Amino acid sequence: MDYLFIIDTLGVMAFTISGVLSAIKKRMDLFGIFIIAFVTAVGGGTIRDLLIDAPIVWMNDYFFMYTIAITTVFAIIFRKKLYYLRRGLFLFDTIGISLYTVIGVEKGIEAGFSSIICIAIGTISACFGGVVRDILCNEIPVIFREKDIYATACILGATAYFIMLNLNFPVNVIFVVSAIVVFSVRTLAVVFNIGLPNIYRNEA
Amino acid sequence: MDYLFIIDTLGVMAFTISGVLSAIKKRMDLFGIFIIAFVTAVGGGTIRDLLIDAPIVWMNDYFFMYTIAITTVFAIIFRKKLYYLRRGLFLFDTIGISLYTVIGVEKGIEAGFSSIICIAIGTISACFGGVVRDILCNEIPVIFREKDIYATACILGATAYFIMLNLNFPVNVIFVVSAIVVFSVRTLAVVFNIGLPNIYRNEA
Amino acid sequence: MDYLFIIDTLGVMAFTISGVLSAIKKRMDLFGIFIIAFVTAVGGGTIRDLLIDAPIVWMNDYFFMYTIAITTVFAIIFRKKLYYLRRGLFLFDTIGISLYTVIGVEKGIEAGFSSIICIAIGTISACFGGVVRDILCNEIPVIFREKDIYATACILGATAYFIMLNLNFPVNVIFVVSAIVVFSVRTLAVVFNIGLPNIYRNEA
Repeated sequence: MDYLFIIDTLGVMAFTISGVLSAIKKRMDLFGIFIIAFVTAVGGGTIRDLLIDAPIVWMNDYFFMYTIAITTVFAIIFRKKLYYLRRGLFLFDTIGISLYTVIGVEKGIEAGFSSIICIAIGTISACFGGVVRDILCNEIPVIFREKDIYATACILGATAYFIMLNLNFPVNVIFVVSAIVVFSVRTLAVVFNIGLPNIYRNEA
Repeated sequence: MDYLFIIDTLGVMAFTISGVLSAIKKRMDLFGIFIIAFVTAVGGGTIRDLLIDAPIVWMNDYFFMYTIAITTVFAIIFRKKLYYLRRGLFLFDTIGISLYTVIGVEKGIEAGFSSIICIAIGTISACFGGVVRDILCNEIPVIFREKDIYATACILGATAYFIMLNLNFPVNVIFVVSAIVVFSVRTLAVVFNIGLPNIYRNEA
Repeated sequence: MDYLFIIDTLGVMAFTISGVLSAIKKRMDLFGIFIIAFVTAVGGGTIRDLLIDAPIVWMNDYFFMYTIAITTVFAIIFRKKLYYLRRGLFLFDTIGISLYTVIGVEKGIEAGFSSIICIAIGTISACFGGVVRDILCNEIPVIFREKDIYATACILGATAYFIMLNLNFPVNVIFVVSAIVVFSVRTLAVVFNIGLPNIYRNEA
């Protein structure tokens, strides 16, 4: 459980840093940077909790507020060094979406939704923080336009969750393996430069 | 009831196709296209359900997920042919907003809201899927800028609903006639090229 | 109580007018102008009520709908004269955020949230109407980029609320003094041209 907590913190930090960098690119002020960082880190979970009508996680757990605030301060101070951390950030971000996907799926199951909806909930948890970040930065959300395997990795991991659930795997194994599926699909896609099929290939 | 189901499906399909076309215009990837299509079709109803604190319809009814997914695939494959369908799309879209408006009004009444709020709820149900679509595509929502009679048709249809309700018309009649009001107002406005008054007429 | 009601109305009117002016700048149609005005006036409160899972205020109180509708009509008619009202608008807007902040904090306390979350809720109530307005107008939200003391004034006023609460001040005093803190901080910041620290100072 302690490992999970540490990994979860690293995920929140990665999302926060990605928000800070987006906000700085738009030359936002300090308040703007903090809000974008915050929204990137908790936006997906907030939309999830609104949709399933559950209490909003960050409103009942100080952990997020503090982690995001401290990370934001550090990210602003060391923003010129962050470039060298790109690989670390990719790693944490990928860990982040892996965990958020599986946690989202489990919240959906708890709330009584069926598998296909839970897959959607998991994917929303993991990806929509970034969508809200991009909207607030006045950009078309990056996950809608890059042909990157990002949301697709979440969908596959969440699907793996339900396949294992139907095969009566133990809950812990399902959790870990689904997260590993998300992580591996995204990492392998980046390493081997695999993307979604390009539907614009034969066009001007 | 069967007729209503078929008409409802056509409405969802029309909204889905309009989402697919917007997303393709922005050259989004496959995931982006699906999300924009989905949001266009269910966004208005989702905002409605959040506001009245009801369960989100598409999360409890597979019909939407499947209809949207299948329509999206077809719309992508036949996207170059869709141009010839423009009239059909206009027809379905207008049917769509007519039904969504009346269903929204009835949901509002059920939840105990007063007439003017129910008119707002009906209009939001019908129009805000398109608003979210345009925001995700990084555009000012088209219904805010075109002087088109679109939301106005919904408002008039929803108002007709309450006039008939006060005159003790039978529920079925109210449903059908209100939907016809929305449909006719929009169609006639387009045919006779009638728009909202232009407040910028005397300006540069 | 009557004074409070008048002040509250002036706040709603100031937000409405700011929405009308933004929408006109984007040359929106009449429906668009009304929606932007409406969202600017009630958007922050709506997000607050969704987050704390309370009934949406404007859906249960006609006051908002009517005030906003009437103000919008007047603002459109007299839009060329509004320029001369700039100081009045600044005054009402600042009164608006002062009241919305304190009301938001009190709603958060009622719903059982802890102080730091209530400060966030108060700030969201006051500031996020403008954020939604800017997103619908396809702009990066102005409060994220101007280095203005705006949200910061709300945060300080909300913090003052909890300091006085811990010191067992009477509730009425806390309400008034917190609102005055928000009001004074923003006004003094504008008068003396004080902003958030500029983190981009040493950059190109």
